Amino acid sequence: MQAQNQRPRDLGIKIGVLPVGQFNAITDVPGVTVGHTTLINGDHVRTGVTAILPHQGNIFQQKTPAAIYIGNGFGKLAGISQVQELGNLETPIILTNTLSVPMGIQATVRYTLAQSGNEDVRSVNAVVGETNDGYLNDIRGMHVSENDVVAAINNASNGKVAEGNVGAGTGTIAFGYKGGIGTSSRKLPESLGGYTVGVLVQTNFGGVLTIAGAPIGQDLEQYPFKSAIEKSDGSCMIVVLTDAPLDARQLERVAKRAMMGLARTGGIASNGSGDYVVAASTAESMRIPYNTKAKTDNGDVLRNDEMSPLFMATIEATEEAIINSLFAAEDMEGRDGHQIKALPKERVLSLLKQRGLLK
Amino acid sequence: MQAQNQRPRDLGIKIGVLPVGQFNAITDVPGVTVGHTTLINGDHVRTGVTAILPHQGNIFQQKTPAAIYIGNGFGKLAGISQVQELGNLETPIILTNTLSVPMGIQATVRYTLAQSGNEDVRSVNAVVGETNDGYLNDIRGMHVSENDVVAAINNASNGKVAEGNVGAGTGTIAFGYKGGIGTSSRKLPESLGGYTVGVLVQTNFGGVLTIAGAPIGQDLEQYPFKSAIEKSDGSCMIVVLTDAPLDARQLERVAKRAMMGLARTGGIASNGSGDYVVAASTAESMRIPYNTKAKTDNGDVLRNDEMSPLFMATIEATEEAIINSLFAAEDMEGRDGHQIKALPKERVLSLLKQRGLLK
Amino acid sequence: MQAQNQRPRDLGIKIGVLPVGQFNAITDVPGVTVGHTTLINGDHVRTGVTAILPHQGNIFQQKTPAAIYIGNGFGKLAGISQVQELGNLETPIILTNTLSVPMGIQATVRYTLAQSGNEDVRSVNAVVGETNDGYLNDIRGMHVSENDVVAAINNASNGKVAEGNVGAGTGTIAFGYKGGIGTSSRKLPESLGGYTVGVLVQTNFGGVLTIAGAPIGQDLEQYPFKSAIEKSDGSCMIVVLTDAPLDARQLERVAKRAMMGLARTGGIASNGSGDYVVAASTAESMRIPYNTKAKTDNGDVLRNDEMSPLFMATIEATEEAIINSLFAAEDMEGRDGHQIKALPKERVLSLLKQRGLLK
Amino acid sequence: MQAQNQRPRDLGIKIGVLPVGQFNAITDVPGVTVGHTTLINGDHVRTGVTAILPHQGNIFQQKTPAAIYIGNGFGKLAGISQVQELGNLETPIILTNTLSVPMGIQATVRYTLAQSGNEDVRSVNAVVGETNDGYLNDIRGMHVSENDVVAAINNASNGKVAEGNVGAGTGTIAFGYKGGIGTSSRKLPESLGGYTVGVLVQTNFGGVLTIAGAPIGQDLEQYPFKSAIEKSDGSCMIVVLTDAPLDARQLERVAKRAMMGLARTGGIASNGSGDYVVAASTAESMRIPYNTKAKTDNGDVLRNDEMSPLFMATIEATEEAIINSLFAAEDMEGRDGHQIKALPKERVLSLLKQRGLLK
Repeated sequence: MQAQNQRPRDLGIKIGVLPVGQFNAITDVPGVTVGHTTLINGDHVRTGVTAILPHQGNIFQQKTPAAIYIGNGFGKLAGISQVQELGNLETPIILTNTLSVPMGIQATVRYTLAQSGNEDVRSVNAVVGETNDGYLNDIRGMHVSENDVVAAINNASNGKVAEGNVGAGTGTIAFGYKGGIGTSSRKLPESLGGYTVGVLVQTNFGGVLTIAGAPIGQDLEQYPFKSAIEKSDGSCMIVVLTDAPLDARQLERVAKRAMMGLARTGGIASNGSGDYVVAASTAESMRIPYNTKAKTDNGDVLRNDEMSPLFMATIEATEEAIINSLFAAEDMEGRDGHQIKALPKERVLSLLKQRGLLK
Repeated sequence: MQAQNQRPRDLGIKIGVLPVGQFNAITDVPGVTVGHTTLINGDHVRTGVTAILPHQGNIFQQKTPAAIYIGNGFGKLAGISQVQELGNLETPIILTNTLSVPMGIQATVRYTLAQSGNEDVRSVNAVVGETNDGYLNDIRGMHVSENDVVAAINNASNGKVAEGNVGAGTGTIAFGYKGGIGTSSRKLPESLGGYTVGVLVQTNFGGVLTIAGAPIGQDLEQYPFKSAIEKSDGSCMIVVLTDAPLDARQLERVAKRAMMGLARTGGIASNGSGDYVVAASTAESMRIPYNTKAKTDNGDVLRNDEMSPLFMATIEATEEAIINSLFAAEDMEGRDGHQIKALPKERVLSLLKQRGLLK
Repeated sequence: MQAQNQRPRDLGIKIGVLPVGQFNAITDVPGVTVGHTTLINGDHVRTGVTAILPHQGNIFQQKTPAAIYIGNGFGKLAGISQVQELGNLETPIILTNTLSVPMGIQATVRYTLAQSGNEDVRSVNAVVGETNDGYLNDIRGMHVSENDVVAAINNASNGKVAEGNVGAGTGTIAFGYKGGIGTSSRKLPESLGGYTVGVLVQTNFGGVLTIAGAPIGQDLEQYPFKSAIEKSDGSCMIVVLTDAPLDARQLERVAKRAMMGLARTGGIASNGSGDYVVAASTAESMRIPYNTKAKTDNGDVLRNDEMSPLFMATIEATEEAIINSLFAAEDMEGRDGHQIKALPKERVLSLLKQRGLLK
Repeated sequence: MQAQNQRPRDLGIKIGVLPVGQFNAITDVPGVTVGHTTLINGDHVRTGVTAILPHQGNIFQQKTPAAIYIGNGFGKLAGISQVQELGNLETPIILTNTLSVPMGIQATVRYTLAQSGNEDVRSVNAVVGETNDGYLNDIRGMHVSENDVVAAINNASNGKVAEGNVGAGTGTIAFGYKGGIGTSSRKLPESLGGYTVGVLVQTNFGGVLTIAGAPIGQDLEQYPFKSAIEKSDGSCMIVVLTDAPLDARQLERVAKRAMMGLARTGGIASNGSGDYVVAASTAESMRIPYNTKAKTDNGDVLRNDEMSPLFMATIEATEEAIINSLFAAEDMEGRDGHQIKALPKERVLSLLKQRGLLK
């Protein structure tokens, strides 16, 4: 048992019952890429940007159906109302820190205006989420630049996704331990539709940590309402992508289930938490062209009756993505000497083994 | 100028700029029928039921996309959450009085259970709206029976729709005058899509009456906040049907615009008002079968960009349907000798003429 | 270890970390009472009614702040929009089966109209929830009468609450086993406000059962998507009451957390699930009088910053109430010879013991 | 009759029936100030910023109850979810152009961080609305700077409010004519509570213009769906402030009524419109302190039953504010030689006189 550099599933921790995709990552959804800009400068800068691209075309010209669900709205995610009204997404999804949201918007707008084919565009709805990394990071310094945001978009790639203290997860805290970026996926059996659901999270929230059902937070005596760190509330950004042909109404239903996955890790969506779920369908048949002579958009959508397996996949992948973020994150020292320890993985594995939860 | 038995448009009152359908009624939407049960018994019963059928098949087996928007939720309309979650309608739409909603549900459920083909159905989401006719009607007596509801469904017909003191509008009051059922439609030019929008209202609300923009309420010195009758708040049920291929998200957008039509008549959606809009698409291509082997529902939906003319049609048809209800309603005496006068139509026409508003 | 007639907590199963109230029931919230009408007649009737009264005065005359949150809206709960618009509750909360909602409304309206002091009332917003017990119960027969509903209200009592196959839980199914009524409570330490949160559930839903974190559903090989019973979807009604002084906005936040408790039991809020949470504050200081000369209502409400412990209490009490319903429910045979087994409690206890989860 | 520099009410145009405040402006609500930064540079820059301050203290430290209602969500207003979740406002309300929202947020955040007493603040929810002035303004150039935003806040004043081509209204278009900033107020009689409601709008939308009920758009043959300008959709930002003691739920109800005022001007909330209403209570008794030892927030809130006059005041003030913006706006030439004419005021007055609508 060597926890370093191994993901929970590789260590024998099994979350849920559905099979995972090739990389157990959001990039298992065909066409999806993820990029990070990690900012660790001097003693005080511990932040970054993560960009998720639902497809590799011009997203503004080929929008995807999308929805945003708000688990708890103490947050500043940009782009909510237009996604909810029009039911679509027209930019990469950007994650960063709370006070860098305006820079995230500005950069995403400029990136979009500058794309070939968008010369006449004069309105862009950037979707930019955030959590507050102000305990480890000098957040008041607003250290994320436009270039940092665009770099995350430009270096996005498919395949394996870096987790832990990277990108928007560089300075975050979860359950009193170092949080960060995590990802997971589920691939439904053909009998249940055969679709893939991928989830990426930026974990920065509290509660009583539960891993694969085990009350690890209790074992480690890490409770909320105890210390400044755990009272710091925090937030969780969750991105859910799927190749299932879903419209906005259905994607909102999917997005709601992500909060149920968060609940299974012990999260309580505390008062100060900004818990947001952005969901989009990457199905090519569902693309919504910006320019077209057609009067209608294709809408062959999955029937309501076929949705439940996607709900279960979303719950499972969200739960696992959160746990993955904790296993990948490492000790971090930041602003004003503040220190946050990583989850004590060896101890956790030992506890899980005692409970018969390691395969 | 003879106001009796003539509708406002026939009298030269023009509301809006878009053309109306053949009957200037919700039944201009192909396949739509409307039925009334009018209950005027003894001194105290002044109530009824109105049923609107979006198509002539088995609605449970062939559901239609639908949405419900709530202008002001002081009301008891049944069926809201399932329509919002699943995005469809599976029964006729029933309107009646506030305390007869349970009878409306019960009857609609039994009607549906008894339909050929529904033998195995064990869950039915009846959509039943209401306004409070308790000033003229002995509403505490709950005089609507299951048979009354089913009769309204069974006698539904296309073509001309009876307005005024009929069906669910038998005992209602609007702007201090006798309200009731009203209907209107708009037929978009082909260049704007060629679709028909039909509206039916049950008017029972207050404000400062405005007819075709003219401040008739002020001319007649009928203000809210003045008398028991006008303080009685009341409500407005609005049903919007269209043959445009719209999904639930788009229908919610359409439904919101109906409240803008209400606003143009001087309505203020007062605290005690239950203002609900039920919208559905009757487009055959959008039907959602209950039983099918298909995994997807077909549906090429209108593009967002093509929606604005439908919004305008909804606003205009709602405004005109409300005014139509006032012109059709007649004096009524009911419970405990309570009397409500009809709109003084000759006087109103004279006022409109002075303002250059009669064509 | 004797599982019969013992509740999970008495058997050593510990859910959550916060202390429970005296009866570990919704009735731990001062003034709250619960009543059941259980209908087990002949071979086919397996249904009932459960009534929850937030206080012992005239609820219509002394309304309580309230909110309704919809986890998944495939259901017919009555009263949603008025609670959401006005932020209050004016009747007992009634639970029953899907097709008996209209009878539940009718009875609650008549009960309210008949109450002393309500002689002039002509509008009543009954809150009536439901789940579908149609596998065991002849639901199409609509066997709940007005008297059955009123009886549940009238026999409501404080103290210990009957769980399992009683009232609205008589014929329900959860996780492939017999579900029913369950209840639990949490009493916050004084340092966290000292408030009590009580939850009552009607369990009729599916997923992969998790008990105190343990993957019991996997151990027992009970998965959704497998059989007619587990595909039957079902629903969960959740009632959350608290003596914390909360307004409607805050109660909606509390209500949302109940779905997180459901998630911790393995529920997935499947497509066909009607998952509704009704939350109300019983704090006397927050009562909203129907008749008063005052222009304002008292609104000294808990600060947002003080809410998180209530969220955690709601999550824990909901999780435990669901598990309690499964332990209390017993084997049931009903309509057309359909049989549902109770949770195999001895086996479950043995599995929990193996995992170190029995104290 | 001299239209120049006179407001519609001074010219004899009467909108609604309730009395107006001293300045017929949002600043009639005690403590409210408004500031503009108007950017007219060279041939292409026609934009600006408008700031509305609900009170003159440190808004972050003394938050106000608030709500945001979305009439049509094709827009980028920042701050929605936190206002909706927590029910309060913690910054000035900023209006600007679509692509300057990030600069608006950034500046408002920095302004707040720099305020005395906010030294430890690490999270700020800026409320920044926008409409798209891209026809007259080089919006892609993003010409609004942080200093421009802060200047609007710093030069805010009470009393008379500049209307028309100023601040965020510098480059906007409404009903095919030059739009801009407009404001109005209503002061309820003591018998209806005595409260003041003030509204400020940034008009940039279309429809068939209606002035005091008169079909001026038809008279002037200005219809939507006709030309590039009128197809450009646009948006309307509406800010509603009142000294009535309202909580967030009630403010949302007030905010919804503003869209009814917009409807009375002929607006249709077209597909491309971003129609947002921000409402807040300035009542001192309702302030929500950021730092306090108290566990509850004080707040005797107006009863639901007392709300209707506030609804009517909001509708009337919104309608008049929109018309005021059109009368104040003047001809404008901007980007690429684009020209927009002001409303032909003399012609309009003549038409209104013919219809008996000038007092």
